Amino acid sequence: MKAVAFLGLGVMGYPMAGHLQKAGYQVTVYNRTQAKAERWVEEFGGQWAKTPKDATQNAELIFACVGNDNDLREVTLGSAGAFQTMAAGSIFIDHTTASAEIARELAEEAAERQCQFLDAPVSGGQQGAENAALTVMVGGDEQAFETARPVIDVMARAVTRLGPAGSGQLCKMVNQICIGGLVQGLAEGLHFAKKAGLDAHQVVDVISKGAAQSWQMENRYQTMLADEYEHGFAVDWMRKDLAIVLNEARQNGSRLPVTALVDQFYGEVQALGGGRWDTSSLLARLEALDKQ
Amino acid sequence: MKAVAFLGLGVMGYPMAGHLQKAGYQVTVYNRTQAKAERWVEEFGGQWAKTPKDATQNAELIFACVGNDNDLREVTLGSAGAFQTMAAGSIFIDHTTASAEIARELAEEAAERQCQFLDAPVSGGQQGAENAALTVMVGGDEQAFETARPVIDVMARAVTRLGPAGSGQLCKMVNQICIGGLVQGLAEGLHFAKKAGLDAHQVVDVISKGAAQSWQMENRYQTMLADEYEHGFAVDWMRKDLAIVLNEARQNGSRLPVTALVDQFYGEVQALGGGRWDTSSLLARLEALDKQ
Amino acid sequence: MKAVAFLGLGVMGYPMAGHLQKAGYQVTVYNRTQAKAERWVEEFGGQWAKTPKDATQNAELIFACVGNDNDLREVTLGSAGAFQTMAAGSIFIDHTTASAEIARELAEEAAERQCQFLDAPVSGGQQGAENAALTVMVGGDEQAFETARPVIDVMARAVTRLGPAGSGQLCKMVNQICIGGLVQGLAEGLHFAKKAGLDAHQVVDVISKGAAQSWQMENRYQTMLADEYEHGFAVDWMRKDLAIVLNEARQNGSRLPVTALVDQFYGEVQALGGGRWDTSSLLARLEALDKQ
Amino acid sequence: MKAVAFLGLGVMGYPMAGHLQKAGYQVTVYNRTQAKAERWVEEFGGQWAKTPKDATQNAELIFACVGNDNDLREVTLGSAGAFQTMAAGSIFIDHTTASAEIARELAEEAAERQCQFLDAPVSGGQQGAENAALTVMVGGDEQAFETARPVIDVMARAVTRLGPAGSGQLCKMVNQICIGGLVQGLAEGLHFAKKAGLDAHQVVDVISKGAAQSWQMENRYQTMLADEYEHGFAVDWMRKDLAIVLNEARQNGSRLPVTALVDQFYGEVQALGGGRWDTSSLLARLEALDKQ
Ligand SMILES: NC(=O)C1=CN([C@@H]2O[C@H](COP(=O)(O)OP(=O)(O)OC[C@H]3O[C@@H](n4cnc5c(N)ncnc54)[C@H](OP(=O)(O)O)[C@@H]3O)[C@@H](O)[C@H]2O)C=CC1
Ligand SMILES: NC(=O)C1=CN([C@@H]2O[C@H](COP(=O)(O)OP(=O)(O)OC[C@H]3O[C@@H](n4cnc5c(N)ncnc54)[C@H](OP(=O)(O)O)[C@@H]3O)[C@@H](O)[C@H]2O)C=CC1
Ligand SMILES: NC(=O)C1=CN([C@@H]2O[C@H](COP(=O)(O)OP(=O)(O)OC[C@H]3O[C@@H](n4cnc5c(N)ncnc54)[C@H](OP(=O)(O)O)[C@@H]3O)[C@@H](O)[C@H]2O)C=CC1
Repeated sequence: MKAVAFLGLGVMGYPMAGHLQKAGYQVTVYNRTQAKAERWVEEFGGQWAKTPKDATQNAELIFACVGNDNDLREVTLGSAGAFQTMAAGSIFIDHTTASAEIARELAEEAAERQCQFLDAPVSGGQQGAENAALTVMVGGDEQAFETARPVIDVMARAVTRLGPAGSGQLCKMVNQICIGGLVQGLAEGLHFAKKAGLDAHQVVDVISKGAAQSWQMENRYQTMLADEYEHGFAVDWMRKDLAIVLNEARQNGSRLPVTALVDQFYGEVQALGGGRWDTSSLLARLEALDKQ
Repeated sequence: MKAVAFLGLGVMGYPMAGHLQKAGYQVTVYNRTQAKAERWVEEFGGQWAKTPKDATQNAELIFACVGNDNDLREVTLGSAGAFQTMAAGSIFIDHTTASAEIARELAEEAAERQCQFLDAPVSGGQQGAENAALTVMVGGDEQAFETARPVIDVMARAVTRLGPAGSGQLCKMVNQICIGGLVQGLAEGLHFAKKAGLDAHQVVDVISKGAAQSWQMENRYQTMLADEYEHGFAVDWMRKDLAIVLNEARQNGSRLPVTALVDQFYGEVQALGGGRWDTSSLLARLEALDKQ
Repeated sequence: MKAVAFLGLGVMGYPMAGHLQKAGYQVTVYNRTQAKAERWVEEFGGQWAKTPKDATQNAELIFACVGNDNDLREVTLGSAGAFQTMAAGSIFIDHTTASAEIARELAEEAAERQCQFLDAPVSGGQQGAENAALTVMVGGDEQAFETARPVIDVMARAVTRLGPAGSGQLCKMVNQICIGGLVQGLAEGLHFAKKAGLDAHQVVDVISKGAAQSWQMENRYQTMLADEYEHGFAVDWMRKDLAIVLNEARQNGSRLPVTALVDQFYGEVQALGGGRWDTSSLLARLEALDKQ
Repeated sequence: MKAVAFLGLGVMGYPMAGHLQKAGYQVTVYNRTQAKAERWVEEFGGQWAKTPKDATQNAELIFACVGNDNDLREVTLGSAGAFQTMAAGSIFIDHTTASAEIARELAEEAAERQCQFLDAPVSGGQQGAENAALTVMVGGDEQAFETARPVIDVMARAVTRLGPAGSGQLCKMVNQICIGGLVQGLAEGLHFAKKAGLDAHQVVDVISKGAAQSWQMENRYQTMLADEYEHGFAVDWMRKDLAIVLNEARQNGSRLPVTALVDQFYGEVQALGGGRWDTSSLLARLEALDKQ
């Protein structure tokens, strides 16, 4: 059975690495905060290492799921990073939502070491990670993808390669763009429904059968109406992602007026203290002014 | 069997009235452009009348589906309007997408004549009208609703009463609000995907399984990518609806920043000559500038 | 000396009518709330009348400055309105900020009575009204304009005819459009300056010499920084004006994305309780979220 | 007389360095494209050097005016950069519009070398540079500022220190924020005026006396109406600046909805081929769609 490494045991990485171990791979985990790595080993077996470098030593596949570009740079190219010891022929699979730029850079760095790098951001949230039901969007070498795929499959509902290095990140960006306008539209709809004196639950019941339907409408309207925003992907993460998106758009010449605007509205949610609320909290922003 | 009238045989009204006749009601139709009324009688049987007043004379239920508030005022309160001859006890069911204000006004006018008025805008588009699969959102008297419901059912997949006069229109407004932001988000996503050099079809295939999913994404992305905008509800109609929405929001104190912005973007689609394109043409607006 | 009437003694009309009386015209005033008319006569002399109709009876020039389209319709075409008694050859000069549509309608109605109607909205605010320093933007018949001009001059710093009926209102609309984006830009600038830890007074001192300079920057930044919004044109009025603007834009095919957005932001100021604050309160909206 | 260096002889730097030489300073210039440096020496005297390092060698004051953060990093910390040879006690004055972050970083780097760094972005454009009429916004050590001030004065109309390292850049950011909303508002106003059939020149003549007045209105409306956009600061530069602004706002927690939106509109101007047009070309964007 293959030896693999997993770097970053956060909300996402912790259960993802667990699925690999449960599937029979020999997983060595690394986490900056060591206690979490120890806890993981207690729960799943496997081993933990003190640094990315140590974890990577004997691994054929190295997985990572850390926060952002800087974190990723540190666990790869840093002085104790995985790229220091990564063996020729091994494949680094990064599940962090990061820029396409760093994906291309790390793909080149890996190539210089006779390794491969796949950018493989995910969607599906904490629940998807826990239930091995993630959607994985992959960019990078086709051969490497075919090799890694069966292992990624262990954590996923769907795994797709979208093109060369960076393509996974770019696909994830499209996902976030679509969500921005959609959630704001939904928030405005619910806000209006309440102001209009309608029973918003009934309204959603009616309109969710037709052209206004969306996953967000079906899965978030109840918590939104209940003013509960603790059920998913955090606003702070979303702003990180939208910063990456808007920067990439600057490079590739696309224009994203509503995405840029909604990003600022998320900034207003942060000002309200909602950085850790989920992304459907755009409704809370609309209502905050009324509550004063 | 009940005698009913149907005023307005446009894209929507024509097939809707047809379903009523086919279901066994004695339908008298009126249409401003008489030729359409004659054609309808040829196709479905029933009768046609020269004015709304004439059509309404003996009807227990009067249906209408005309363009906007002004049109509606004309076919009801106008000198040859239905309210001139509407018999006490009859029910006027309006399928026009119009303001809540005129719904309330006509409900009062009807009450003065011992009649009832139900605002009953629909969603589901031309296809829904043709296949008797509309979603009908009703406002008005509960008793009247119960009486009219079985007849409305003939044209619909779902019929719901949302509250007093105007509530049907208000529910439809929520629908349009949700669509505005959603479609712009989708358009920005596809625009970005193309600029990023991704295979946009594949991207949608991947992300439409998750949190970015929407009816619009599933049903419109292919035509959007093919630059085809002739498959549904027209931008001119959408702007009419959004004008109603934004005016109502002004009254009820709700704030709709993205809806207001997208309404202006639809204005740009109109400037491009796209007034008759469907609402997914927000992508065409984004791309128009590149094509110059 | 000419006999004139003045309808509407609000914040603007009261001092405006006063200037006319002081200049030697025989002014008969009308105000809905009679007490204000009585007070005006005490202060300036002249006469007051119980209805617009009565006030207008013997007047060669009739001035009005009421709130909005509806008010204007009432004091002109209403059953006790000025158009009931307006003598052939007289000129009605309307200083209300209203739609171009009603201006055109009243110009036609006046013509049918062998009278003239000039739309003549003003800028300059309460101070301009009190100091006879208004800017007056006129639409309507050229001859009538030349006749009325010397009388309007009494209240104004500048009086310009911009074209046929409605043109005065359209010019005022351009004014409001320019102000919307400008004030929001200024508010964002000051908000950023404070967040950046700069001395915002010093910043304005520096940048107001160059390309960022504006009347608003020079005349409002101090009160904005002091969180004082009681120095001018109210948000409620601004929203009324922007509703007129956005409706006209719908007709003439112009697109006003930032104007539409800022209008919604003014809606948020209203939600905060700031309907009577002045238009520079867009900064308060930005800061409200921080204060929670 | 002091020996000074000037790095970067672009549209701005070329005349700025000229003013220093004409004022009697011994200027050694460096420019990446050497030909320009040679031309400068021909025109003004002084000397040119092959690298920033060489130019800086004997200078007490080193000025720079290059493109962006990356350029600045290269001419300072690069292997042939000024910081390699900068003598203890010398002062580096940077006129580039760059991030506050790099200003703080270079201030620290300078301090480690017993030098000082002042961020000193300018406004006033090419004309201001040529006429020694720039507005200079300075951040950094007060003592260093006092020493450098008389020399900076040679190129400027106004020189102000706004606080510690980075404050000059932050002040310039406020300037750009204010301009974004303002110019879009103005563009929408002119666009509406034309659509409304008004004489836009006359309209500006009227409204530029009041609350809608701005430097942009007075100095740009004629070229905007003439569809001429070659009179000033380029859209490409503006987007660079707004990227810096929006990034800084992300850090300091300010929200800039209209700035973010206008930035995207400038992206649309770029798509139209207007990257080198001046910033008033937001009107061209509004009109582009009509022209198709
Ligand atoms: N949460 C979600 O719903 C989803 C998240 N994502 C993306 O997945 C990624 C991870 O998210 P999530 O698990 O929620 O985040 P968490 O904050 O829960 O975990 C982040 C992980 O990264 C580690 N890390 C951060 N910086 C460094 C560093 N410099 N060196 C070493 N390790 C570091 C953290 O270590 P430590 O424990 O020491 O802090 C932690 O293990 C993000 O890019 C996010 O955008 C994608 C889809 C959904
Ligand atoms: N099309 C769609 O996909 C959907 C439309 N709607 C709404 O349904 C309504 C009708 O739409 P649709 O059928 O597409 O529109 P059409 O333009 O096809 O038809 C409009 C109908 O109204 C009649 N009419 C308009 N003005 C008057 C008047 N003053 N007096 C008498 N009759 C008048 C027209 O008569 P004439 O034939 O003489 O022109 C025609 O019969 C609208 O409110 C629309 O917003 C709602 C959901 C979907
Ligand atoms: N305030 C300002 O700074 C500026 C205002 N304007 C415009 O000038 C107009 C007047 O503003 P302002 O004077 O501030 O407003 P006010 O609210 O102070 O005054 C409104 C006047 O209109 C009268 N009025 C309202 N409705 C009716 C009606 N149905 N019948 C008869 N009289 C009526 C009011 O009578 P009553 O006393 O009985 O309420 C009052 O005299 C508005 O259109 C405004 O947009 C333009 C530039 C600047």
